[in-house]
Amino acid sequence: MSALLRLPHHDGSSTYVGEEAPRLGESVTVRMRSHVDDPIDDVWLRTTYDAEPVYVALSRTTDGDTTWWSADLLIHNPVTHYRFLIARGDTQQWLTGRGLVDLDIPDAADFKLTSYAPAPDWALDGVVYQIFPDRFARSAAADAQPTPSWAVPANWDDTVVFEGSDPRTPVQYFGGDLDGITEHLDHVARIGADIVYTTPVFPGESNHRYNATTFDQVDPLLGGDAAYERLSSAVHARGWRILGDLTTNHTGDTHEWFRSAAADPESERCSFYYFNADGSYANWMGHGTLPKVNHGDPDLRAAMVEGPTSVVGRWLTPPYDVDGWRIDVANMTGRLGALDVAHEVARSVRRTAEELRDDPLVIGEHNHDASGDVDGDGWHGTMNYSGFSWPVWSWLRSPNTSARAFGRPVQVPRRSGPAVVDAFRTWQGALGWQATSASWNILGSHDSARIRTMVGSPEVHRVAAGLQFTMPGVPMLFAGDEIGLEGVNGEDARRPMPWDSEQSWDTATLDTYASLARLRRARAALRRGGQRWAYVDDDTIAFVREHLDGSVLVVARRAAGPAFDLDLLVDSHLLGTESGVPALAVDGSRCVVPAATGPRLDIWALA
Amino acid sequence: MSALLRLPHHDGSSTYVGEEAPRLGESVTVRMRSHVDDPIDDVWLRTTYDAEPVYVALSRTTDGDTTWWSADLLIHNPVTHYRFLIARGDTQQWLTGRGLVDLDIPDAADFKLTSYAPAPDWALDGVVYQIFPDRFARSAAADAQPTPSWAVPANWDDTVVFEGSDPRTPVQYFGGDLDGITEHLDHVARIGADIVYTTPVFPGESNHRYNATTFDQVDPLLGGDAAYERLSSAVHARGWRILGDLTTNHTGDTHEWFRSAAADPESERCSFYYFNADGSYANWMGHGTLPKVNHGDPDLRAAMVEGPTSVVGRWLTPPYDVDGWRIDVANMTGRLGALDVAHEVARSVRRTAEELRDDPLVIGEHNHDASGDVDGDGWHGTMNYSGFSWPVWSWLRSPNTSARAFGRPVQVPRRSGPAVVDAFRTWQGALGWQATSASWNILGSHDSARIRTMVGSPEVHRVAAGLQFTMPGVPMLFAGDEIGLEGVNGEDARRPMPWDSEQSWDTATLDTYASLARLRRARAALRRGGQRWAYVDDDTIAFVREHLDGSVLVVARRAAGPAFDLDLLVDSHLLGTESGVPALAVDGSRCVVPAATGPRLDIWALA
Repeated sequence: MSALLRLPHHDGSSTYVGEEAPRLGESVTVRMRSHVDDPIDDVWLRTTYDAEPVYVALSRTTDGDTTWWSADLLIHNPVTHYRFLIARGDTQQWLTGRGLVDLDIPDAADFKLTSYAPAPDWALDGVVYQIFPDRFARSAAADAQPTPSWAVPANWDDTVVFEGSDPRTPVQYFGGDLDGITEHLDHVARIGADIVYTTPVFPGESNHRYNATTFDQVDPLLGGDAAYERLSSAVHARGWRILGDLTTNHTGDTHEWFRSAAADPESERCSFYYFNADGSYANWMGHGTLPKVNHGDPDLRAAMVEGPTSVVGRWLTPPYDVDGWRIDVANMTGRLGALDVAHEVARSVRRTAEELRDDPLVIGEHNHDASGDVDGDGWHGTMNYSGFSWPVWSWLRSPNTSARAFGRPVQVPRRSGPAVVDAFRTWQGALGWQATSASWNILGSHDSARIRTMVGSPEVHRVAAGLQFTMPGVPMLFAGDEIGLEGVNGEDARRPMPWDSEQSWDTATLDTYASLARLRRARAALRRGGQRWAYVDDDTIAFVREHLDGSVLVVARRAAGPAFDLDLLVDSHLLGTESGVPALAVDGSRCVVPAATGPRLDIWALA
Repeated sequence: MSALLRLPHHDGSSTYVGEEAPRLGESVTVRMRSHVDDPIDDVWLRTTYDAEPVYVALSRTTDGDTTWWSADLLIHNPVTHYRFLIARGDTQQWLTGRGLVDLDIPDAADFKLTSYAPAPDWALDGVVYQIFPDRFARSAAADAQPTPSWAVPANWDDTVVFEGSDPRTPVQYFGGDLDGITEHLDHVARIGADIVYTTPVFPGESNHRYNATTFDQVDPLLGGDAAYERLSSAVHARGWRILGDLTTNHTGDTHEWFRSAAADPESERCSFYYFNADGSYANWMGHGTLPKVNHGDPDLRAAMVEGPTSVVGRWLTPPYDVDGWRIDVANMTGRLGALDVAHEVARSVRRTAEELRDDPLVIGEHNHDASGDVDGDGWHGTMNYSGFSWPVWSWLRSPNTSARAFGRPVQVPRRSGPAVVDAFRTWQGALGWQATSASWNILGSHDSARIRTMVGSPEVHRVAAGLQFTMPGVPMLFAGDEIGLEGVNGEDARRPMPWDSEQSWDTATLDTYASLARLRRARAALRRGGQRWAYVDDDTIAFVREHLDGSVLVVARRAAGPAFDLDLLVDSHLLGTESGVPALAVDGSRCVVPAATGPRLDIWALA
């Protein structure tokens, strides 16, 4: 696929949308570009006003080799849909959020502008560093902690037990603590991350702490509330942000609410859960240790998510002072059989956060399709496994890996560039530009295999990292990715950070992350730019991140490949993350991307 | 595209789904077929249990050249999603409601099984005949009616005024009445229709009566309540059904509710509408004569849609005794700016109908994307313009027609067979099998151009009619289509039925409709069969409607074309609707569809 840059284009970035965060009732200028040689007769903007299609003719102007089409779009609904109808003679195409299509597709892939407040700037511009406290670092204080009765103690350099069938897997206890994190913030700074996101810090009888025994305090084994306050203060002192992780879907079966409810059928906590007459209860995926909470119950909603005294609310204020939440199992929260109050719960979480902080962030975990949950007044974004992780994995996976996407019964398929770009575009269309931009580009997490294990080599790992920092969305690294840690599944991926054997680190990869983070901070195009696909073949994915403050060209290759022409007139200069990248050869209107001898990702600034 | 019949297949028909109308909590066997030569390693059923993906391995059996894969699907949610993951070596495909896809697409195209009661049998098996009362027939009683003051009287054979800019368009009055319909039910019988659907019969100061002045009685100009009772009784006496047409979105500005509200700011009817401080009010698409009602108001909801005393309720009982409703502008009903209670309104209409009748039908008008509104407990189906009308039009349109799809600023594009089948499949995936089956296959309506004008010839018109009766969905004819009436837009399409000039009728086309209706009634495959695509090229669309009681092969051609092989082993016999259709040549495993010298549609029974 060449000549992609000649195709009509629109996205939700400032080049194409006059106001990225419009108010309800406001009119926003939307623009579409086409190449002057494209024999377009007319273009209409189609919006759906209260779900009724309305067409507005676009006006055109020409600037060099570009025809600009524009019209005003009234933000009539809180989420206003639109698309472009392009007429050439007897043929018609739609330009939608998933690109150009030759048939009348459903509205789900429409471009969308929402009048709800967007994710805060810090969340869009930042880099998230995910920390699993038991495995990140031990402070001196950790040595003084007793081993809890449920735990199987491990030394920091022990091998992680990761088989789901092994009873030690959830209780193997390495004893990382919060002061350990605070002591290593310079490492986070070295990578260039500035949003610290820890998996749960509530007490829980497991190493992952997703089975909270209370939401009222920080686990004393982690150093308790005081240690959290030290961490939070240290993070904020650097001008950074910190995010909590909350299981709104369930608690542990050792949780004080559940123990009250299970012990006494008259307890006012009984309504917090779904008990059957025989004493059994709804839980997460068959795990009796994780009883599901009932968001159909107003008292549970008040305790968990609504208002300043709820769990969601209390942690957003000092001493914890989190800047927002990553919500665990957001997809299932509030959904059970015929009950579906998932949207209301998401709205409650966001409303509570907005009541208590000026610029909070709420990210919902969803591992397949969050599109119905993110474009309104609920989650700002999601952990974008479907729109980023799985496509990247399927492009870059090693033929030798046995790692899988979590939850799937088979290995990751190996797919070619066009199929992967199709997936990127499909999900960008489904989630919409704004939610995609606020969602997290993840190469792996505490729930998945490590990217290094998936792709099998440092070179390909760095290509993946390049995509993570250059595709629309917010990079989220799971701690350890930056030094090349391995892991065949989520549990295996939770290997302790080898602070004492820095010689084992892949510092070239660490430097790549740091360089990418610097570049992302320096270049508005990488944080806020639009995305135009430039060239795609089986082994090559190239795109322009377009911004008024300067655009960049990204060329990712999973294998060696020949030079190719970009049908693009530029005066470019090098911004690449790898050494020895030649400048783009510009010959009249021809811009030639040089051949590559192996996997690599290059970034050029375009004048 | 040949060898389509060798591809893996599933749909919502009884061949593939053990129970088409399951209860919540029930397990349903779902089956997928593949060809024995397809090198599939494994197939998994993926469902989303409370929005979390769950995979179940399918078991396989072989029967001749078919491998059957099956598993049990728990109907855990009222609308349970599922799809199939097919693994061949390192590659994977999904089989979804829109067919096979090579990437991880969003859930919207999943197969769906719903635990809500399906549309009634009569609605799935019937043929709908749409009547626009002012233009269908005048009884002797009509001659005695005075011309209303708002009307511009016309003689039955006058030319219809149809320009939107002409003030006579909505008030040109031909004076058809309900007894006129009752007198012509033999004509409806001749076509083979058995569901009479009239556009509104409430009094309204227009020929279309979508601007009701009251919902409490039938327009006296149409013969009043007594005439409606005669019509309803006569329809029921034939074992047929009758449907009303209600504007839940708006009333006329002459409506008694609106007049009370506009006259008195203290009126309890004020809350029924959206008045601004300056006396202006929300209305349909800028038409002040059509004030929009406020479904955010409980009193309006009670008056309009909820319970036996509501408008929806009262007409479902004698003397009116309608069997259900076609709901006008269902897409916009309950939606205005930030308010969206469209689903609640649809649920109220359906709940009211189900309280009052054993087997009611509710169909919502939606002209672009009803997929979010039909797969739950709201509308059983929609007027399927997007999934049927527009694709058929784009395949069969005459190059010479100036007719457009309503609401669009351009002519209908001309598209080839593969693009049209892609559209059929896309919308079948979006709406789901059950809602598609209950939705109306429309070639035109009182809102659109006539099919004859769109396609330009009787031969192609009959191909369109063939698709209308053989594609999944319920045929709905706009009265006059069967005799070849013309019309370049909706208003022009409302030409009076020329009862007195039967010599002008295209009786060949009428006979085609009658033959198609007989065939549909005789063949379960055409009413309830699944749909497997068999062969597609630019000018040919062929599919099998598959049913345990006997399958049929449908071959539609828009132009002359050569014979082609179907990779299908059959012992077929002829069921065609055109004379002179040769039998399928069967030679070993080769089944040859004969060449065609022009547009035609043939139907063969498959043994």
